[in-house]
Amino acid sequence: MRYELYYWPTIQGRGEFVRLALEDAGCGYADVARERRKGAGVAQLMRYLEGKEAGALPFAPPFLKAGRQVIGQSANILAFLGERHGLTPRRPAARLWVQQLQLTLADWVDEIHDTHHPIAASLYYEQQLRAARLRSADFISHRLPKFLDYFEQVLARNASAGGWLVGARATYADLSLFQIVTGLQYAFPRSMARVLRRHRRVAALHEAVAQRPRIAAYLRSPRRLPFNESGIFRHYPVLDRP
Amino acid sequence: MRYELYYWPTIQGRGEFVRLALEDAGCGYADVARERRKGAGVAQLMRYLEGKEAGALPFAPPFLKAGRQVIGQSANILAFLGERHGLTPRRPAARLWVQQLQLTLADWVDEIHDTHHPIAASLYYEQQLRAARLRSADFISHRLPKFLDYFEQVLARNASAGGWLVGARATYADLSLFQIVTGLQYAFPRSMARVLRRHRRVAALHEAVAQRPRIAAYLRSPRRLPFNESGIFRHYPVLDRP
Repeated sequence: MRYELYYWPTIQGRGEFVRLALEDAGCGYADVARERRKGAGVAQLMRYLEGKEAGALPFAPPFLKAGRQVIGQSANILAFLGERHGLTPRRPAARLWVQQLQLTLADWVDEIHDTHHPIAASLYYEQQLRAARLRSADFISHRLPKFLDYFEQVLARNASAGGWLVGARATYADLSLFQIVTGLQYAFPRSMARVLRRHRRVAALHEAVAQRPRIAAYLRSPRRLPFNESGIFRHYPVLDRP
Repeated sequence: MRYELYYWPTIQGRGEFVRLALEDAGCGYADVARERRKGAGVAQLMRYLEGKEAGALPFAPPFLKAGRQVIGQSANILAFLGERHGLTPRRPAARLWVQQLQLTLADWVDEIHDTHHPIAASLYYEQQLRAARLRSADFISHRLPKFLDYFEQVLARNASAGGWLVGARATYADLSLFQIVTGLQYAFPRSMARVLRRHRRVAALHEAVAQRPRIAAYLRSPRRLPFNESGIFRHYPVLDRP
């Protein structure tokens, strides 16, 4: 099965959580909006958003096409890929637990986005700078440690060896936590350096994911887009203050 | 199976999406934090958040206890209950589609919350009023019609009769859409009256859910908490402007 991933072509964004799972599982996939062939590109992505294609209507990218099935919402796509490619446990209760963690990671991502866009996605960052400074300060003081404390505690409570969030093998939630830590190190380097020191299990998981052979190869490849100031994780030094 | 729902005792909040599913399915459940018996109340909810109980650690309420299993994140709880109690289709692809819609509804709920709390949940509304006015204006102008247009289109594209989002029977996503429309009518009565007129399928679904016998009985019961200005849907007239 060759998958088709649909996501904005110039940012990692929420599509990156899906890319990491596809790459780690060794799946073949087309990153449709980044391709220049006929029937690809952003125009093809827009056809789905505008309801011009059959199947489940996505509200926003990313969405994944698997055969004729269209699946939207990152966490939902990951649940689907996880089951198919061994990135989630077999036991139903453990699968729900992985998905619970993923949804908490998704909430965290929403909050990270809103540090630079607290008022409206339709306005530029510069048009909401005052609110962004307030929101970022609260994020760094309260929310960042709260989320890190939570995942550190989840790792500490996992009785299995290996350092993963659930059980003894990596799941899609581990890959997503890696991505969030990497993104936060880009966006808030000073704050992350300070706070990650107190979250050794999260830091170790971040390192372990980076060293997985397929992930390491992917991160070195041109398929991995660089972070930039159009995505979720943006480096605005003025926002990176304790 | 008698479930235990854990949620803050004085607001509908995100717990209400779970309550509606439990009520519609006719499940027996304890609303633990609202009970005064020993081993109940907010103190018992806090024990889970503080990691003093076994099982999947929740980041935040709501969470559901089913036997010894603890399940967090509203959409995840609904997927679990939906499968068990006929509130989601049997076909895996259709289940993913219902969950995709639920996750989009959850995103909408996050945005509704942030209309009155755009800067920080740790601050009072009054401390972020200026930002709340800006964010609410953008929400009413752009996001509210965008989400309503989307769900109207999903309803129009469903080939099955009945007026539900997916297939020919109500799912947990229909119950959640009902709750969001009801909450928005409370929070933004002027804006919603104006915009809902152009979304007749959503309005009809809202009416159809309200008339389901178990939902109707629940809405009349003391188990249904009133909306108030501590929950997600808050009525601040100054924010309800075009």
